[in-house]
Amino acid sequence: MNTLCVSGGAVLGPDHEVERADVLVDRDEGTILEVGEGLNADAAETLDASGCVVIPGLVNAHTHVAMTLVRGYADDKPLDAWLREDIWPVEGAFEPADVEAGAELGVLEMIKSGTTAFADMYFHVDRIADVVERTGLRARLGHGVVTVGKDEAEARADLEESVEIAREFDGAGGGRIRSMVAPHSLTTVSEEYLREAFSAAREIGVPVHLHANETTDEVEPILEDWGMRPLEYARKLGLSAEDFLAHGVHVDDREIELLAESGTGVIHCPASNMKLASGMAPVEKLLEAGVTVGLGTDGAASNNDLDMFGEMRDAAMIGKLAADDASAVPADTVVRMATAEGADAVGLPGGRIQPGAAADLAVVDFEAPHLTPRHDVVSHLAYAARGSDVRHTVCDGTVLMRDRDVQVLDQAAVRERASRRAGEAIARAHE
Amino acid sequence: MNTLCVSGGAVLGPDHEVERADVLVDRDEGTILEVGEGLNADAAETLDASGCVVIPGLVNAHTHVAMTLVRGYADDKPLDAWLREDIWPVEGAFEPADVEAGAELGVLEMIKSGTTAFADMYFHVDRIADVVERTGLRARLGHGVVTVGKDEAEARADLEESVEIAREFDGAGGGRIRSMVAPHSLTTVSEEYLREAFSAAREIGVPVHLHANETTDEVEPILEDWGMRPLEYARKLGLSAEDFLAHGVHVDDREIELLAESGTGVIHCPASNMKLASGMAPVEKLLEAGVTVGLGTDGAASNNDLDMFGEMRDAAMIGKLAADDASAVPADTVVRMATAEGADAVGLPGGRIQPGAAADLAVVDFEAPHLTPRHDVVSHLAYAARGSDVRHTVCDGTVLMRDRDVQVLDQAAVRERASRRAGEAIARAHE
Repeated sequence: MNTLCVSGGAVLGPDHEVERADVLVDRDEGTILEVGEGLNADAAETLDASGCVVIPGLVNAHTHVAMTLVRGYADDKPLDAWLREDIWPVEGAFEPADVEAGAELGVLEMIKSGTTAFADMYFHVDRIADVVERTGLRARLGHGVVTVGKDEAEARADLEESVEIAREFDGAGGGRIRSMVAPHSLTTVSEEYLREAFSAAREIGVPVHLHANETTDEVEPILEDWGMRPLEYARKLGLSAEDFLAHGVHVDDREIELLAESGTGVIHCPASNMKLASGMAPVEKLLEAGVTVGLGTDGAASNNDLDMFGEMRDAAMIGKLAADDASAVPADTVVRMATAEGADAVGLPGGRIQPGAAADLAVVDFEAPHLTPRHDVVSHLAYAARGSDVRHTVCDGTVLMRDRDVQVLDQAAVRERASRRAGEAIARAHE
Repeated sequence: MNTLCVSGGAVLGPDHEVERADVLVDRDEGTILEVGEGLNADAAETLDASGCVVIPGLVNAHTHVAMTLVRGYADDKPLDAWLREDIWPVEGAFEPADVEAGAELGVLEMIKSGTTAFADMYFHVDRIADVVERTGLRARLGHGVVTVGKDEAEARADLEESVEIAREFDGAGGGRIRSMVAPHSLTTVSEEYLREAFSAAREIGVPVHLHANETTDEVEPILEDWGMRPLEYARKLGLSAEDFLAHGVHVDDREIELLAESGTGVIHCPASNMKLASGMAPVEKLLEAGVTVGLGTDGAASNNDLDMFGEMRDAAMIGKLAADDASAVPADTVVRMATAEGADAVGLPGGRIQPGAAADLAVVDFEAPHLTPRHDVVSHLAYAARGSDVRHTVCDGTVLMRDRDVQVLDQAAVRERASRRAGEAIARAHE
């Protein structure tokens, strides 16, 4: 059999037990065959994990990957002004090849920091799908729809593009790519189109993904127009268990209950919520209510990186402040949010190291001063490890990074192209 | 002349201008001679900074460096229970050689992440001083005094040890070591001993450093006993411009005014404040009032690393939430807090790259996906860079790390000793 063996390390199991074990992978099926000792004998390919901890590949459950092009372009501004004055004008100047260059840079960064799956809402999605297809990651992709402020024809075209993309790309890349219908938010898409988005998603059999309750500006207008909270409105429109929403900062107890009832996943983006001063999501309350909570970096412009280790740390830190309780959102929980819970929320395989599961793995080198002593592996993953500690990255049974060397992209070329294209797009935006 | 040239990089100047330049250093004096182009010709030693940005060595202005031994030993608990149930019992079992092993691990981690100076309050300070002396870092060291709950003789002995340490080590290590008198806090040291601490510090000519207003438990008892806010009480005891306090989370407007008047520095520890759910320090208000604010990691047990890049990012993030304003505590400000402001607050040289200044430098490799594109170097330093991006570290004109290889400690031996000693101390604590 065509196997890969990740050998000589410790393995983080699905219940977060940590044991010395090899992980044997079926490279053709992209699945884990066995976890145990001495599996190395007949493997076609091996990865040395000595001194390392093998963890599930991390799941970045909400991002806009091509926004790497505007990383650090405009900081320290509130969401609305930042979008209108800085981000949207530059994004308006993006050509398809810009989105492709930004996606390559983001995918490179994710592979280098142990992320094997991501959910992405953007435009020129065919170019993002192409990058995912040829680099070997796993992704849930959708075209972001905005209808408010557009005429009827433009609005309809945007919705139709999102539906068309969802139809075309679900199952692409040998099944590694899944799709979604992605209305941008409850305030930037009008009711009629939101209804159509939900109905199209149900018909295709894919989730709806949208931004919700990120700032109070996304709550007040809905309260005024509809006399109900945003997630009550979303529930009426059809929000259900397959769907997932990003942020959920300003949700009240009734909305938390609604999310628990509907089974809708929430993607927490702590860094973005802090950087844009959006507020603190009530993560401990969401978890207590039984809501599935994943983690996302959001776009690199409001973070400013795509490192899910940073996101785990941020989630634990801000979760405690939000709950006013140092025991809230502990290490164990944020590691689950970045792995199994995130995968479940966005409906992608992965997130667990066990036979039959997707062979999506990150091998983290623990032989570093900042990961010494090793009292508690899960604590180190949450609080002290960082993306640069990842030694190998495996997705769908394929080695994407070996000994920090990314196998599927030329780092220098990707960096050069992204820098050049970012500069040119900004120049066009200012013309 | 015996010179070192850091050549081929861009340099972050004192006004945060970024220009292509070499940095020429007098290795004997430990100072910067010149910043400019083409200084490489006659240097005795060179460091290649191509693709890098040369920044002032970072200043970790409040830590307990030997607490690296209890990194990840007990997480997700509130300050009081965490100290009483987990940290203090283990610290009580620390032998001098444990503190030395922990200090070596912490110093190794700091050198690897570009920190060249730190302020440390702990015990067995002679062992910490020994590590600083032989590894080449710069430090402000003090013995932490606790008198509450001790009998008269024990309390007096503890204070006298702090005074003695301050006297003995000020100017040690060829001047790289400065000292301080370090009453632990306003609630753990009684008034009589606090007065003596201030008076001894003034006599020796060193600062007083203490924890203040970290939690409401450090505010309420003073309000009750003295009818005034903690920093009013501290001011009465003699708090002045040379002194610096850690945390300052729960300070009111009158106390902020007092700090501005007295010129006392505040060391902000955002990660620790979040992890222990202590609260959000009003950093934007402190800065607006003109208070000098430095940054500290606090001990590794409440962080869980000593990476000042993480601390800059945390400070910018939480500063915005605390001010409810995304423009608060911007990138430029947190970089100053981690360099010039921190150095000023603790009264150590460094923090600025200019002729005559201390040759304390970190050379940060910007040729990485997460630092691409390079729209804004200062933004990347604050939001996207991490300790692992530091390529070379220089302190007092001496190269402590070259191409990620620490020259002054044996990494494997330090990690092994720290792990072993931590395990043994924990076992003793549980006997």
